[in-house]
Amino acid sequence: MRLVTYRAHVEAEARLGALVSGIGGDFVLDLETFGEEMGVPFPSTMLEFIDLGPQAVAIATTLIEQADGLFPLGTAIPFANVTLLAPIPRPRKNIFGIGLNYTEHVAESAKSLDTSPELPRQPVIFSKPPTSVIAPGEPIRHNGEITQQLDWEVELAAIIGTKAKGVSRENALAYVFGYTVCIDMSARDCRRAGQWIYSKGQDTYAPMGPVVVTADEIPDPQTLDLSLTVNGVTKQSSNTAFMLFKVDELVADISKGITLEPGDIIATGTPAGVGAGMDPQEWVWPGDVIEATVEKIGSLTHSIIKA
Amino acid sequence: MRLVTYRAHVEAEARLGALVSGIGGDFVLDLETFGEEMGVPFPSTMLEFIDLGPQAVAIATTLIEQADGLFPLGTAIPFANVTLLAPIPRPRKNIFGIGLNYTEHVAESAKSLDTSPELPRQPVIFSKPPTSVIAPGEPIRHNGEITQQLDWEVELAAIIGTKAKGVSRENALAYVFGYTVCIDMSARDCRRAGQWIYSKGQDTYAPMGPVVVTADEIPDPQTLDLSLTVNGVTKQSSNTAFMLFKVDELVADISKGITLEPGDIIATGTPAGVGAGMDPQEWVWPGDVIEATVEKIGSLTHSIIKA
Repeated sequence: MRLVTYRAHVEAEARLGALVSGIGGDFVLDLETFGEEMGVPFPSTMLEFIDLGPQAVAIATTLIEQADGLFPLGTAIPFANVTLLAPIPRPRKNIFGIGLNYTEHVAESAKSLDTSPELPRQPVIFSKPPTSVIAPGEPIRHNGEITQQLDWEVELAAIIGTKAKGVSRENALAYVFGYTVCIDMSARDCRRAGQWIYSKGQDTYAPMGPVVVTADEIPDPQTLDLSLTVNGVTKQSSNTAFMLFKVDELVADISKGITLEPGDIIATGTPAGVGAGMDPQEWVWPGDVIEATVEKIGSLTHSIIKA
Repeated sequence: MRLVTYRAHVEAEARLGALVSGIGGDFVLDLETFGEEMGVPFPSTMLEFIDLGPQAVAIATTLIEQADGLFPLGTAIPFANVTLLAPIPRPRKNIFGIGLNYTEHVAESAKSLDTSPELPRQPVIFSKPPTSVIAPGEPIRHNGEITQQLDWEVELAAIIGTKAKGVSRENALAYVFGYTVCIDMSARDCRRAGQWIYSKGQDTYAPMGPVVVTADEIPDPQTLDLSLTVNGVTKQSSNTAFMLFKVDELVADISKGITLEPGDIIATGTPAGVGAGMDPQEWVWPGDVIEATVEKIGSLTHSIIKA
């Protein structure tokens, strides 16, 4: 299932929907409204849906399949009419980010940033506050008073489905609800004593979406192409196969010390091709456009504007 | 006003209270219940109360003063009967922690950890997830599979009262709701590529409380003694006057890039005397007891137990 958080019109509340095909094209099926017609109490938000666990995904998937493209009037809205928000507009804790999680990115970072050339022996974790999340298409704000080195990073993000503490790597993927795309914007000149939260956690620095693909549709998250362009020119192009620490290792590792909760987000790191690694270095500026794509999920397109 | 989050008995819900003196001793005044008697709609939780802004503090303070120690029956519970929780049991985003914010702690860290001996030119920010917060007296869990270097840090924590983005240092203290005590537990051997979230963000690593003292009672947060003992032996003893970046600078600085929201917590850093800085180094182990005190606020006492 491909889930979204959407507004039916500009002033409407944010609601949970599923992307479906119907008569005349693509629709966002409002899950709560659809559920009312079907006698199933689906909730109205993504986090509440995630809280219900995998059974809710299975029931919704079955009901949508049974509808076979014919949805009760008023439950499905033409896709062109809606505005997408970040799938989880307000995460319950900071997003977990993973640094230095692709071999060639470790090398380019060591050349240009202050990181070690050696591959990390354990996942390198940082965080991005909920206030950094923006919707697909919402502009990324460039504050020239703070940064002259705004950089891009395309990432696969895993969304936790079930509370996880001390889970084994073998069982870890069972705790993942689904996957989305995250751009981990990074103001390289805002690192402080090596800490990354200020460089990566500023408002608008975490574009997310456009959809959450539930884990049943991506049984192996380590097979996905991911890429990023700036003004149409490809800067990053790799595959999640090249992650140093795979999604299951990340979930197991973090959960050893920190309880992962439904809706928690792990941005799994970026491959080579960031601006800091270029020679000469490249940064984005107001007017530039970033497009980030992860296979089977979709693309995020964001303009940079002056803050 | 001295505010708490409390349970009236073990199974009761977490509720907002104010510490008051009445006939026969000290009480927790349940603000919602008291407000109902007075015709004022106070909420039942700390975060909802903070959301109401400074006016709510002023009204509650006045009503408590007017009561003059005589509270309607059923509104005040003997202090000895309640259990305190962390004032904000579930922060809305990760706690902001500030590293290297006292001169002598910068020096001891440079000797024993991997930080620079130079004073930071800007605040060094990291984060601790909401899942790290525990109540006063709740045990701190020592996981011997993850750490052999569990360390202590006493800190003054500032709690944001009003949404702040790009505020000036001059106005910054007006955005502070109040202050509490935080112990920034730190597993020194869990730092990864210099990032601190895993070393400082594990479950139980952020004891907080016992009360929030509203900002009107601490007009100058840079005058407070703070200290910490391990098994009764003083390890840290300093004063918030020696912070490198004062509370107003921290609020102004963070808010330049990251929107601060009501209930956000900034743990303002620790003075010298941590275990990593001792010669030989000292750590806490199951059975040890930490007591952390900040003047005008109170003390937190926590045992270390085996996870």
